[in-house]
Amino acid sequence: MIQTPYLLFLGDAPDQLSAKVAQGIKDWRPDNAVGQIRMDGCKANVGLEDMTLEQAQAAGAKTLVIGVANRGGYISQAWKAVLIEALAMGYDLASGLHNLLSEEADLVEAAAKHGRELHDVRIPSVEYPIASGVKRTGKRVLAVGTDCSVGKMYTALALDEAMRARGMKSTFRATGQTGILITGEGVPLDAVVADFMAGSIEYLTPDNDADHWDVIEGQGSLHHVSYSGVTLALVHGGQPDALIICHEPTRPHMRGLPDYKVPTMEAIRDVALSLARVANPACQVVGVSINTQHMSDEEARAYLAKVEAEMGLPAVDPFRHGAERLAEALEAL
Amino acid sequence: MIQTPYLLFLGDAPDQLSAKVAQGIKDWRPDNAVGQIRMDGCKANVGLEDMTLEQAQAAGAKTLVIGVANRGGYISQAWKAVLIEALAMGYDLASGLHNLLSEEADLVEAAAKHGRELHDVRIPSVEYPIASGVKRTGKRVLAVGTDCSVGKMYTALALDEAMRARGMKSTFRATGQTGILITGEGVPLDAVVADFMAGSIEYLTPDNDADHWDVIEGQGSLHHVSYSGVTLALVHGGQPDALIICHEPTRPHMRGLPDYKVPTMEAIRDVALSLARVANPACQVVGVSINTQHMSDEEARAYLAKVEAEMGLPAVDPFRHGAERLAEALEAL
Repeated sequence: MIQTPYLLFLGDAPDQLSAKVAQGIKDWRPDNAVGQIRMDGCKANVGLEDMTLEQAQAAGAKTLVIGVANRGGYISQAWKAVLIEALAMGYDLASGLHNLLSEEADLVEAAAKHGRELHDVRIPSVEYPIASGVKRTGKRVLAVGTDCSVGKMYTALALDEAMRARGMKSTFRATGQTGILITGEGVPLDAVVADFMAGSIEYLTPDNDADHWDVIEGQGSLHHVSYSGVTLALVHGGQPDALIICHEPTRPHMRGLPDYKVPTMEAIRDVALSLARVANPACQVVGVSINTQHMSDEEARAYLAKVEAEMGLPAVDPFRHGAERLAEALEAL
Repeated sequence: MIQTPYLLFLGDAPDQLSAKVAQGIKDWRPDNAVGQIRMDGCKANVGLEDMTLEQAQAAGAKTLVIGVANRGGYISQAWKAVLIEALAMGYDLASGLHNLLSEEADLVEAAAKHGRELHDVRIPSVEYPIASGVKRTGKRVLAVGTDCSVGKMYTALALDEAMRARGMKSTFRATGQTGILITGEGVPLDAVVADFMAGSIEYLTPDNDADHWDVIEGQGSLHHVSYSGVTLALVHGGQPDALIICHEPTRPHMRGLPDYKVPTMEAIRDVALSLARVANPACQVVGVSINTQHMSDEEARAYLAKVEAEMGLPAVDPFRHGAERLAEALEAL
């Protein structure tokens, strides 16, 4: 678990998009960040107060989070002076980059010298068990997609927020690097060894109050041939009571797979539900989340109405219209 | 790739069952082993000539394979003298035990000193790619089970043998430790990192002659909640043209999961075929392999006839009756 609150390191970010991890933390867990720190030439701004390491520490910051990704995901030499100074001052470091903090000799040395932690959320820090399949108390909802990168994390975060706004007990459960940095904990599922994937999701979503919901971040798609095994581990390890189907309607083919068409929402609903019921016979599909970012307002509303009529389920774009109707559907379950 | 032929190390095996890796090599690739070496008190015998390290080396042996498993899968101190002497004589070592050869300081030192290899087939030795999903030439058949340990490896090995006996081009592709030791190569799929599972199976079953079959060893089950993600990676990474359903009819519940009933063969057929057709729309289920070890001859024949009538597919127990009818079904495809 990463100590909060954070100071968000934007470094020399070449553009706003490269700071999407920092933006995610600011958007979804603003209480987790006291400010941002930028170097000369930084082109990103997530809208938090610019602070020095000293100012942020005075404001309570415990961890410097690398909220920016270079092309290639490496730890830039230009950043090192700031990172090493932060360790010397008593900050922990956290990163979701491919290139690990723990592989940088100067950072490892500085962390050891000052007794600080280096959190590489891209790799597991826990020895997960093999899944037992034993029924757990509490309720779980999982976002399943027709493809990768269709908005499953966004849907889960928005749903969690809407549920808490209604007074429901809810916890967002991160299964990817960005989600883990946003909340400070989770399972980096794509880096877990095959035999322990489902067990890591059982570990992530343990017994809980009967009226508590874990909102589990989805990964991949049951029809995405590169990552489908990861998705099925979520379906079986998560024992979901409810599924939300996530879809992006304008995609010409599966992400990274030019020869593969995106499946219909009905195909994913059927295969996901049939497999989910192996672990939880009571599982239901309760709603649809559409990513309408490439549609006009009018197109989006028409498309959502059509999906809602065809599938007989609430269909929303949580970014455009909020996730309240999905939260309602869960409450009614 | 492990150098053959082997000398099979049975150590101080407490019973015949503990030598099942050695037995598998003797049964399926007898040309891969020149003999067996046993210590005082060894209770196993796989029926090969007993040899000293010197005799086996004179007969051409290149690798000493640990063909026995202790309770707990560790490397016994009692074995060390033989293993270290073998390294000094020029043998490589190979093992599928949980406890790795490469974690034993004395073995690592002896291997380095004598320039020998330590093969731990339980862990990957290759950096596998992420699956591309690109269609490959050649044909592939995958064994899919209703449960773990129902005879998928045996079915694949027997099918490969029957296909080669008919003059078909066939290669058994190992995806587990025993299979890797039997053939000298393969992918230890349960130890591959999640993101690379399907890619490891693409790597294992590359482009080949149009009339060549890869016979892929199955793992787990799409309905086994602990390991289903591993199974789906095989279905999508393998791009199978054909599936063989494997089943053990007397099991009271899923292996290791007392609360889970074994699914019907029809349920596995339907979900496996639907998911396999994502990667290969031409995929067909061509046969059924039943493990009848807990049935009498009469019960077995009656059960197989019933399955054959109900599913409209050849149904055999390859251990009792051979895999010829499955090979025929593939040839007819």
